[in-house]
Parts: sequence; structure tokens; C-alpha cells
Amino acid sequence: MAERKNFVLKGNICYSEDIHLLRTVEQGYLVCLEGKTEGVYKELPEQFKALPLTDWGDMLIIPGLVDLHIHAPQFSFRGLNMDLELLDWLNTNTFPEEAKYKDLDYAKKAYQIFADTMKKSATTRACIFATIHRPATELLMDLMEETGLKTMVGKVNMDRNSPDYYCEKSPKESERDTIEWLESVMSKYDNVTPILTPRFIPCCTDELMERLSRIQKKYRIPVQSHLSENKSEIHWVKELCPTSRFYGDAYDQFGLFGKPAKTVMAHCVYSTHEEIDLMEEQGVFIAHCPQSNTNLSSGIAPVRTYLERKMNIGLGTDVAGGSGESIFRAMVDAVSVSKLRWRLLDESLRPVTMEEAFYMGTLGGGAFFGKVGSFLKGYEFDALILDDSSLPHPQPLSLKERLERFIYLSDDRHIKGKFTEGSRIF
Amino acid sequence: MAERKNFVLKGNICYSEDIHLLRTVEQGYLVCLEGKTEGVYKELPEQFKALPLTDWGDMLIIPGLVDLHIHAPQFSFRGLNMDLELLDWLNTNTFPEEAKYKDLDYAKKAYQIFADTMKKSATTRACIFATIHRPATELLMDLMEETGLKTMVGKVNMDRNSPDYYCEKSPKESERDTIEWLESVMSKYDNVTPILTPRFIPCCTDELMERLSRIQKKYRIPVQSHLSENKSEIHWVKELCPTSRFYGDAYDQFGLFGKPAKTVMAHCVYSTHEEIDLMEEQGVFIAHCPQSNTNLSSGIAPVRTYLERKMNIGLGTDVAGGSGESIFRAMVDAVSVSKLRWRLLDESLRPVTMEEAFYMGTLGGGAFFGKVGSFLKGYEFDALILDDSSLPHPQPLSLKERLERFIYLSDDRHIKGKFTEGSRIF
Repeated sequence: MAERKNFVLKGNICYSEDIHLLRTVEQGYLVCLEGKTEGVYKELPEQFKALPLTDWGDMLIIPGLVDLHIHAPQFSFRGLNMDLELLDWLNTNTFPEEAKYKDLDYAKKAYQIFADTMKKSATTRACIFATIHRPATELLMDLMEETGLKTMVGKVNMDRNSPDYYCEKSPKESERDTIEWLESVMSKYDNVTPILTPRFIPCCTDELMERLSRIQKKYRIPVQSHLSENKSEIHWVKELCPTSRFYGDAYDQFGLFGKPAKTVMAHCVYSTHEEIDLMEEQGVFIAHCPQSNTNLSSGIAPVRTYLERKMNIGLGTDVAGGSGESIFRAMVDAVSVSKLRWRLLDESLRPVTMEEAFYMGTLGGGAFFGKVGSFLKGYEFDALILDDSSLPHPQPLSLKERLERFIYLSDDRHIKGKFTEGSRIF
Repeated sequence: MAERKNFVLKGNICYSEDIHLLRTVEQGYLVCLEGKTEGVYKELPEQFKALPLTDWGDMLIIPGLVDLHIHAPQFSFRGLNMDLELLDWLNTNTFPEEAKYKDLDYAKKAYQIFADTMKKSATTRACIFATIHRPATELLMDLMEETGLKTMVGKVNMDRNSPDYYCEKSPKESERDTIEWLESVMSKYDNVTPILTPRFIPCCTDELMERLSRIQKKYRIPVQSHLSENKSEIHWVKELCPTSRFYGDAYDQFGLFGKPAKTVMAHCVYSTHEEIDLMEEQGVFIAHCPQSNTNLSSGIAPVRTYLERKMNIGLGTDVAGGSGESIFRAMVDAVSVSKLRWRLLDESLRPVTMEEAFYMGTLGGGAFFGKVGSFLKGYEFDALILDDSSLPHPQPLSLKERLERFIYLSDDRHIKGKFTEGSRIF
């Protein structure tokens, strides 16, 4: 096995070294040792010449993409019934669909479609919401394990403010199911790990949060949830948690908002200064989900602010708030909505650049998984082989231009190879 | 020939009867006689039973899509260098690229890529900008003729405020070239017709507009241009045309703004009440280009206003302001940006619905070409055969849901057949 993870790829290599620096190397050599990047070279150093080399010709080689926020059970209704705002959308579309995953036959059918699509997508890492159902969540984890993608999957916790047919009966029951789930899956997989997933404050009682906090401390698992997505939601949290200073504080009161718990919060469209300060201080990751924030009429997150403060930020598709699993599309959308925000709301926050969007979709989000999302030395070897030859153009293009164009124009047909930690997925 | 245009298609038929009514007929019969729609039937009437019938099984059949605004020479740099606003973008990206089409070899290479892509796209009708060059414009028309799509193509007129290397030398020269072009192409094609194309007011002197006005009256051809896209542009028009009451008035002074000249104006993001009144009065068509208006940080057009006033409105991709040729994507974007406009700017203008976006991309834009964009009786038989079987879903879906989902999720792989005026394109 170790042998297979020592090799060289040759091609046109592009990756972020940091938020501002996109490095491009034409016809370079990318060396993988023991599943980690050893280096990127213009000439192959002598000591690696004995390694097996694959020459990808004129194709591009980039780090795998990272999706910090996606709902597997919502994949079934992506691109459907997009005419509602968050809270109505949850009640009309989401809860009725997620409830179906109690039925393992339905879950199998739906999650197989999700897993197959994720496998052939450009995503190599993802933070995934399942449903409240333990059996279906484990099934999803089994299926994701088979894809070879490195994912974190969460059984959802929710014990209030959802319909009876889709609500855990008590904090205690939710806790028990969660512990049973964790005991079952903690060491079960090579590729999949559990992540604690309180749906969002409106659906979680204080008692449930208290119990989840204890679970987090005991199992030391990361946390994912939603934050400051929609104005009505924020207003509701204020009502539900009168003692919290701001939305994020309602998580923080239970130690579920960053250090020591590794936490990713989706959206952060309307985070206040205080909330942003606390996120920065405690290293909370932001999953910026531009398409979802548009589709659900939520608004546009102040990404420029987060980038300038060098906060932890990556991209999320938020299927089915987003209509598809493409993080390339999320990069484009991140740039696009930032322009509208700049034009319509605040000309002091200049638009996000393509380099910054690429950073967020690779290295920015990758940091949630460790040394992931770049070809810097020592980083996990997650890579994509991209073929843009079927996207013809009459003029010569630089490698950076080819990458930008790929991000805008490509689809799954153009992904010719995919690796995680040095193992080839396809 | 006529025989080939009499036939029946069976499948799941969807089309707009008007702006509010999307009609769906499962396993219906669509009858084409002499290249026009005769009707849509749940049971095939006796008198059509002798016609050749193609059964498309579970596929969808919809009208061909209409792109009211696309720049063929900009197709080469779609998805590139998206970090500029309109006027800088023209000088940095657009004019240098368009100037290359003086070279017919380059034009051949570039326009062939454009024509091939348009052929396999969902678009059956388009209003196309070429460049200032007569030979390259005729080459483009030759290539578009071969696709079988029904298009209007315009040689661009511009005699000021562009670099020397891409500017017509005088109004007289521009007029002469335009007349020679029209004399050459007026009766040359089955599928392609010329359209008068003053680039936009900032690039056209009064004298040029005067001469174009005479040409329009003589040849009775339609007109396409740009209107109220960007605030700096509007300010500039105000300076250049101090006697015009508003941007559109600068066209209207020369009779190039609707009745009797059939006119389509792209964008209309910042049209004033007066401008909107005049557009409505003179039947000017609006080409709503949501992706371009986002990519160039222009803003978001008040489409709800135009729809409520029942004005003439369709969709445009505006490549390369837009990054691709898909009018399905333009439908999605029309819905998406209208939500952000509603959320961020004006909650009195409710978001565009999917039915309305579908209407704009078919019947709304189709009206510029005559009885086009629907399966109402007597309409030109432009149709698409859509196969969504490779987009699996675990739950049953209604035909309307399948259409919405197709609009969000499909690409050219899913288009299995295409007809214009009863002739099969592929």
C-alpha cells in the first residue's frame, strides 16, 4: 500500500500557497511520498527519478476541492421548489424529505445517488449533514467510505421546533442515539469520521446542547452547524435564547463554538462585530455558501471582512440550498455575489478575486481537515487531474487563465483523475 | 422538404401559454404541420394518425430557447478576466479581442468554436453581435447558416471612443461598409438575417446614428444595442448627448428605439421611469442579462417592473459578460438575482418565479422573432428533446418539477434533439 503512494505526476500544476499567492508551474513535477506532497519541481530532482511517473500531458493538476457544508439527504431535491425563504423552506421542503430517511430502503436509494455523484465530482473532502436517523447515517457513512473521499458525516440532533414526524423525542434520547452512533462508527472507517451536528439553535433545546457539549468533550470530535444565515432566524434565536449576547454566543455558552472544539459554521451572512470577534478568537471556520444564500434570499456574506481578518474560511455548496455539488461553481458564485454586495450594499468591501475564491475552495476549507488543500510540502496528497482540451479557444492562454476558465466552464466530464492522500479514486 | 416538416412527436410536453401559465402535458402528442405547431393533444386526433410519429418515451419536449443578446467574438474569452467593470472591461478585454477578427483566419477559428457550441446548445434563436469587420461578419453568418439555428447577426457600428486599432474611420465609411454588407447578405441565407448594430451611444457619433437611421428605414431591418447597463456609462451618455432626456432618448432621436423599427436593448438595469414609459410605448424589447450584470458588477435589473407592465422582455447570455451560452442558466440567474434585489434593494418587487423565467427564455424573447417560443397553434416549430434520465432521483416528481430541475441541473449532454421551424438540427 505504501508503495502505491510514492509517485510523481507531471503536468500543469496550480495551487494556493496562501490566500494571495496562486502558484502555477507549467509542465512541472509533483512528488507524492507516503500519501503526502513532497514538493513541486520544474525539474525532477535526482532522488525521485526512480519513482513511477505519470505524465498527464497538457492537463492541469490542482489540489482536491473542499466542501465545508453539504446536506446529503437534501441532494434529492436540489434544483426544486426554490421559491421560499429559509424557515418556510425547511418546513415545506426539507423536513418532509429528511423524514423519509427513517426508511432505510429510501435512504439507500437516495444516498447511493449522492455518493456516486460526490465520487465523480471535484470534491475530495466534505463536511456532511445526514438526518436524525442513526441507521441511515451509518448507511451514508458506509457509502461514503466506499467512494474514497475523506469526509466528516454528522447524525443531526434536533429536539424542538420541527414537525412531530421529524423531531427527536427528548434530549436524552438524542444523546443516547448520538453516543450509540459514535461508539459504532468512531473507529470503523478509513475515510469517514463523525462530526457532532446540532442542526441549529432554533431546533436544539438548552438541555440537548448541554448533553452534546459533554459528548464533544468526551469524544473530542469536531462540530458543524448553522449561524446567522437569515434575519428571521436570527430574530428567532434572540427570542429562544434571551441570555445569549448574539447568535454565536448561544453555541459558545455550551462550548460548541470553536476552541477547543474544532467548529465549522455555515453562512455567517449577518454576523455582528461581536460574533465575528469571537469566531476569530476561537478559530471558528466559516463555510461560505454563496449560492444557497442567494437561492434562499438570505443575503450576501461579508467575505471581504473575513478574508482581511485572516479568519478560517472555506466554501460550501449547502445542497439543497445550493442546487449542486460543484465547488468550482461555489468559487464562481463567491466572486459573483461579492460584486453585487460591493455594488449594492457597501463599496468599501471590494469584490472577492478568483485567486481568493480558489484559495477558499482548497486551502481555506482544507485547513478544517488538517494540512489539506495545497501542494505545499507535507500536505495530504489530494489532487485533481483536469482536462480542458474539449473547451477549445482560438487564442493562447496562460496557465492561470486556463485555470480561471476551467473554474467557470467545466463540469464532471473534464475531471480525468482524482486522488486523496495519495490513493487514486478514479 | 415540406413532407419532412409534417410529423408528430410524443413525449412529456411543457411550454408557456403566457407569462403566468406553464402548460404541462404528460405523454402528449405535439403535431407539426409545414414547420408550424398545429397543436398539443392528450390523445392524437384521427386526422394526424397517418403522420410519421417519433415516440421520445419519458423525455421532455419544450420550445427552443431564445438568446436575445450574445457577442460571438467574445465567446473566446468567456470565463476570463472577470475582475473589471464595463468600461474598463471593454478597453482591457473586449476591444483588443474583437480587433483580432480583422484577420479572417483567426475569425474562422474562433467563430467555428462559437457556431459548434451554439449548435449543440439549447438555443434555437439568437440575436448576435459580430465585430466592425464586414468579411468576418459574413463569415460568421455563413457558419451560423450551417448550424440551422435561426439567428440575426449584426456587423457592429462604432466610430468614436474606442482605440484607433478598433474604430471605424468615419461615419461615412461605417455607413458604406454597412450598406455593402446588407446588399451582400439580405437575401443570401435561409436561417440568418442581418440586424442593425450600433454598439452603444458612447461609441457612435450623432452623424453615424443619423446614417444608420436612414439605413434602417431603407432596409427595414431590426435594431440591437445596449441600454442603461452601468452607472458610469449612463453618466457618460449624459455628457455625450446633452440634449437627450435619458439614455434611450439618444437612440430615439434617430428613430432607433422601437416602433416602427423592431428593437432589442440589452440590460436596462438603471432605466428611469421616462425611459421605461418610452420602451413600453414603442414596444422595445428588453434583453435581460442577469449573469453579465453580475459579472461586470453592473447591478440587478428591475425585471418585476417590466413583467408587471407586460413589456417585451426576454433573456440574454451576453457572452462574454456572461460566461456561457446557456439560456437555462440565464433562467436560473434571472430568478437568483431577483431574490437578491428583493432582499437587498426593494422588497416591493417580489422575486421572479421559475415559470416567469421560463417564459422569458422562450415565449418572451421569441416574440422578437415573430410567433416563436411556444407550442401554441401557428407558432414556428422550434423544439428541444430533453433527457433527464441521467439525473436520477429517489422520489417521484411531477412534470413541472422535472422541468425546473432540468433547468437547474442539465447541460448539453441532456439535449437529445433540436428542431427549428420543423427541421431537425440534431
